[in-house]
Amino acid sequence: MLQSQLFTKTIKNISAEEKSLNAQLLMRAGFVDKLSAGVYTMLPLGLRVMKKIENIIREEMNAIGGQEMLMPALQPKANWITTGRWDGFDVLFKLKGADDKEYALGATHEEVITPLFTKFISSYKDLPVAAYQIQTKFRNEKRAKSGLLRGRQFTMKDMYSFHSTEKDLDAYYEKAAEAYWKIFSRVGIKDKTHFTLASGGTFAKYSHEFQTITDAGEDIIYICKKCALAVNKEIKDETPKCPECGTSEFETKKAIEVGNIFKLKTRYSEPFNLRFKDAEGKEQVVAMGCYGIGLDRLMGTVVEVSNDKNGIIWPANIAPFLVHLIVLDIDDKEAKKQADEVYGALLKANIEVLYDDRDQSAGAKFKDSDLIGIPWRLVISARTAGKIEVKERASDEIKLLDLNGAVKLIRGD
Amino acid sequence: MLQSQLFTKTIKNISAEEKSLNAQLLMRAGFVDKLSAGVYTMLPLGLRVMKKIENIIREEMNAIGGQEMLMPALQPKANWITTGRWDGFDVLFKLKGADDKEYALGATHEEVITPLFTKFISSYKDLPVAAYQIQTKFRNEKRAKSGLLRGRQFTMKDMYSFHSTEKDLDAYYEKAAEAYWKIFSRVGIKDKTHFTLASGGTFAKYSHEFQTITDAGEDIIYICKKCALAVNKEIKDETPKCPECGTSEFETKKAIEVGNIFKLKTRYSEPFNLRFKDAEGKEQVVAMGCYGIGLDRLMGTVVEVSNDKNGIIWPANIAPFLVHLIVLDIDDKEAKKQADEVYGALLKANIEVLYDDRDQSAGAKFKDSDLIGIPWRLVISARTAGKIEVKERASDEIKLLDLNGAVKLIRGD
Repeated sequence: MLQSQLFTKTIKNISAEEKSLNAQLLMRAGFVDKLSAGVYTMLPLGLRVMKKIENIIREEMNAIGGQEMLMPALQPKANWITTGRWDGFDVLFKLKGADDKEYALGATHEEVITPLFTKFISSYKDLPVAAYQIQTKFRNEKRAKSGLLRGRQFTMKDMYSFHSTEKDLDAYYEKAAEAYWKIFSRVGIKDKTHFTLASGGTFAKYSHEFQTITDAGEDIIYICKKCALAVNKEIKDETPKCPECGTSEFETKKAIEVGNIFKLKTRYSEPFNLRFKDAEGKEQVVAMGCYGIGLDRLMGTVVEVSNDKNGIIWPANIAPFLVHLIVLDIDDKEAKKQADEVYGALLKANIEVLYDDRDQSAGAKFKDSDLIGIPWRLVISARTAGKIEVKERASDEIKLLDLNGAVKLIRGD
Repeated sequence: MLQSQLFTKTIKNISAEEKSLNAQLLMRAGFVDKLSAGVYTMLPLGLRVMKKIENIIREEMNAIGGQEMLMPALQPKANWITTGRWDGFDVLFKLKGADDKEYALGATHEEVITPLFTKFISSYKDLPVAAYQIQTKFRNEKRAKSGLLRGRQFTMKDMYSFHSTEKDLDAYYEKAAEAYWKIFSRVGIKDKTHFTLASGGTFAKYSHEFQTITDAGEDIIYICKKCALAVNKEIKDETPKCPECGTSEFETKKAIEVGNIFKLKTRYSEPFNLRFKDAEGKEQVVAMGCYGIGLDRLMGTVVEVSNDKNGIIWPANIAPFLVHLIVLDIDDKEAKKQADEVYGALLKANIEVLYDDRDQSAGAKFKDSDLIGIPWRLVISARTAGKIEVKERASDEIKLLDLNGAVKLIRGD
């Protein structure tokens, strides 16, 4: 797209009260705008990143048989009373309707999907099944000060699976964990992410978190020095040795939970009476698992772990554009004509390009480009004499190439 | 997809309190589930329809230069005080946060986008610009009894445009109206839809609605017998003659508003001080327009106008699948093998197929197929002897074709 048409601009000074690095960078570069604490608008660049994250997650959930659906945010009080969470869930937004009924704004969706599935599950033949949504969640946080890492409103992928036996749940849980690793690999944070044991609540020994190392994180984890499994601080006292390899040497790190998987077992199917008839005709309670990833948080985490003093460095898979094409000396007809042609050729080659065709100084353009953080910068000017200066955002090396050479390099051919 | 894997099933008896035809059909066929009055879950089939509608709208908004973004539902009270709508907007959900602040749940987004654009508009060079979102809206309706036509929560596309002159706003408004006709044409309701004059509020003589004729509609419109322009009941008394052709012969019809475009002019830019410097350096107030389409309502409207006694009849452009492939005599190895091959061939030809591979009677399968309403039904059985029975949902004619013939017919080659 033409940068002259993009309605956002980079912003020099943002409010001093914004302390979080991810929010600072995303706001300055024009990816998000802060409406109030913990509540952000996704501007066009930010929405492009979100859609890419969304599609990666969707592909991996579909690959393990997840069926996509979309549940409401506005949820009747009665459902939350049934599970005992109307008063027990500490960050639930509550409101009253003109129909004089009380509602919760969904912070999670066990209270909706469990009764829903009583309509579709009656026999062991209906199991296993898994459904997910990519949907807006609300959490009534007292404080929101970590930018996109903890919002009062955010987009989440939550999947729920239903099984006839705990053994089947266990097997699917492993598959979901593998899908999560694929997601974190594709968005570029796998190397900094640790599979982490956390509290399993009343029903399971552990739940599992995917924790990404960053000083912006709100959690403390203990990473086993031998096998890289981690243990969340909340259960460290009861877990003096690594449950995987038995050593007791841990490294302490701050981290942010980017994903969470949980064996709910019958915690929700019991109160909603979600049952099935087994092969012998005997009624049994359905076993459930749940699997969450916050999309905004994932985006904020990538920014926290992938930046330098000049701005964001997007991994190619989730970058708003793959190429930032910049024309300098906009009044030089030859350079402008060449840049227009390169823009057309890149689009034709199905490469996503932000084309900086604005009438601004080289310095201003380079500064904006570094801040926005698109993986490849292509510069055309009077001095490039028909060629293109190609530079990766993450590197200092500049290569002077023709169009074919540039496309080959970008595509990794 | 394999129908045996789809977690929804058709439902024989739905709650008698659901009076609305669109909700009845969509619930029985497994497109939506009702969580509470005016609040629906989009099940996998329903979400597929919604995504198709969404993509059609997105394409047409992008085609007139709209830039996609995503604004929050949770909106600070202060913004609504600024426009005088905190108390003046009758269906606003209000709630209090743990931060002791009051919030509105967005029923519309002038209160967010107008102050946002003060950060990006300062000169006439920044204008015109248009931005839109496809986002979840909340309306605190006292009653919700029209199914998907009037929800307490629903997905809406709302676009806002910003201009330096009213003349420029007028020109863009025309373009937006044309884009809306393209959308209604692509979703299959253009023929039943009338461009309708409605109240313009304080600032404009008229706003314009796109009203689709249906007995389920909540509006009364007067359609000019000569030029087909319509006038909403609310302004009929002050509009005795058709403003387009001058006649006074009208036909009275019930209709549902599927789209609405409105010249806001300076109604919101004034209170938020959204100004720009013109070419002479003089400060002026930005002129605005807004353009809405409710996606759930559009889906409900299509169902209201396109059905028969057996179920829904989806237009191909927004059908959940293009083809419903049905194998009968599932124990007949030849028939099952042929159907599996046809399924593979259709997927390879990039045709979206729901494949009814369930072990059920022909009667049950045909009944489900009619209810779900996929445009093309392809039947394979022991009796079709290597060929395929092809039938359009909207027609009674059955053709016996080979695979190539069927694909040609479906594609309209």
